Amino acid sequence: MYESPLFWPSHWEDKTLMVLDETLIPSKLKYIPVRKVSDAVDVIKTMKTRAFGQFLVVLNAFILEMNHVSAKSKVTLKHIETVAQLLNASRPTFPFAEVTGIIVGVAQKASASGADVRGPVTKTVDGFLQGIRQRRLERVRQLALSIQGGDNILTHCNVSGELAMACAMAKAQGKKIKVFATETRPYLQGAKLTVWELQEAGIPVTLVADNAVGSLMAEKLVNKVVIGSDRSAANGDIANKVGSYQIAVLAHEFDIPLIALTQPSNKVPAGKDMPIEQRSPLEVLLYERKRLFPSGVEAYYPGFDVVPHQLIKKAITIHAGL
Amino acid sequence: MYESPLFWPSHWEDKTLMVLDETLIPSKLKYIPVRKVSDAVDVIKTMKTRAFGQFLVVLNAFILEMNHVSAKSKVTLKHIETVAQLLNASRPTFPFAEVTGIIVGVAQKASASGADVRGPVTKTVDGFLQGIRQRRLERVRQLALSIQGGDNILTHCNVSGELAMACAMAKAQGKKIKVFATETRPYLQGAKLTVWELQEAGIPVTLVADNAVGSLMAEKLVNKVVIGSDRSAANGDIANKVGSYQIAVLAHEFDIPLIALTQPSNKVPAGKDMPIEQRSPLEVLLYERKRLFPSGVEAYYPGFDVVPHQLIKKAITIHAGL
Repeated sequence: MYESPLFWPSHWEDKTLMVLDETLIPSKLKYIPVRKVSDAVDVIKTMKTRAFGQFLVVLNAFILEMNHVSAKSKVTLKHIETVAQLLNASRPTFPFAEVTGIIVGVAQKASASGADVRGPVTKTVDGFLQGIRQRRLERVRQLALSIQGGDNILTHCNVSGELAMACAMAKAQGKKIKVFATETRPYLQGAKLTVWELQEAGIPVTLVADNAVGSLMAEKLVNKVVIGSDRSAANGDIANKVGSYQIAVLAHEFDIPLIALTQPSNKVPAGKDMPIEQRSPLEVLLYERKRLFPSGVEAYYPGFDVVPHQLIKKAITIHAGL
Repeated sequence: MYESPLFWPSHWEDKTLMVLDETLIPSKLKYIPVRKVSDAVDVIKTMKTRAFGQFLVVLNAFILEMNHVSAKSKVTLKHIETVAQLLNASRPTFPFAEVTGIIVGVAQKASASGADVRGPVTKTVDGFLQGIRQRRLERVRQLALSIQGGDNILTHCNVSGELAMACAMAKAQGKKIKVFATETRPYLQGAKLTVWELQEAGIPVTLVADNAVGSLMAEKLVNKVVIGSDRSAANGDIANKVGSYQIAVLAHEFDIPLIALTQPSNKVPAGKDMPIEQRSPLEVLLYERKRLFPSGVEAYYPGFDVVPHQLIKKAITIHAGL
């Protein structure tokens, strides 16, 4: 089975977490050495890693911290709480606190009974990672089953390997499919990551400007939309990369089913309760580190927008556990 | 009154037509010398000039051709017809034939009566240019009247100076306004031209990614949309820069009035009858002449899309005459 490097974008080399630098794709496949928690926060904030890659870094950051406490010393609740706080503050839209809260809970329980928290925390992190891997693979299989031969699929941003893997699986099942990927300005994740991994997976892919979505639908060139989600609310609303909302409105207008890959979440009741991160205007004003636009101009760049559940035809969710 | 360089982006220097190179803005304000008809076709095809600038070049191309015929020789119908054919073939979506057809008609009439066509063609072109200037200034005045104090206007691509001039006029009328400009990928006319000229006109402007339109509307940050049109149909449908259609659908969804600057046209019955130019995929795949994306990937880039008249709240049209 084809596995995209974006599906599991980090791995350990001894005590260093090697994190795929997603900003260098497709030019280079390079891993950044992450040795301590501040490095972990840094790769998240600067979006060197993103989407699922961030969750891997969040979970593994606890291991990084514990590696710095000598085997003879105790890992304390304080260590774990400090790591959690740093991670929670890194990006507002992401529910990192839902994950870190569980780890802190495990540490509190161990700490209350006087035990070293190292063992229970390590076991919990490992369990999470193994479980989430299996559940994501199951989501890929479900998505592959939702894809029919002859489908022309529109996608936005990047779904961390799952769409490319589902397409490869569907292709192996004898289904002939084609994908249209939006550029996804300003970061161009669609053009750089999605186009690249679909090519790697041997799936025909066509790049379109974000402006061409209405045209594509009006010309009946796509019959299905697949997007991921960065966060889900209890009512089924999701937050995803900015632009998802307008694609969903257009898909609804044209009666094109929208499939969202989601995660269960009951921490926020609805989309309006999810804080939307405002990224730096410079991320719109600069392009490949070059300033493109006049100085003194303002820019508005919400990192995400909310797709209300009414616009989602089918949600393929990851089963509970994380 | 403030006049944007984009409102009238070419002028004569002796027998050379100097055409503003809109692809270099905002870095440079540079004019390209256009000495013969093939140069004129070239600046149109390569989009060095665009929108209204193209019509100026189309009309003036006849003068360029006649300048090459010595004053002692006759300008023939054949000269005029050849110019018209070259111009008509340059960009499919634009109704250049509607303009060149009139010029050819004038030449035919003069030719039939045995006269030199030089005089009648020159007079017709000059008359057109003077007339269209007055009518466009009137459209600017009408647009300024449609702008209210407190308006937050979203615009897409570039309306050849008219929006910037109307905003400057509205500001002089004491109205406080703000404009949001989309980037308008792949050519970035919004970011490069619209942002620049609004800054020149002293109007607060905020740049947004094309993906942020849905967000802007959902957050109630804009209350009016103003776009131009590259072509109008008899039923009121318009063709405009790709992305206009999806903005119109979203504006309708949020009950935000969309104002379109249009021209009268009865040559095509409806939007579906307007041919849509497919630009080169390279224009999506390259960015500032640098290849951004993997080789071997396809791209889909319709230059325009159609906004159906049902989605246009108010059309400010240029009065007949061209």
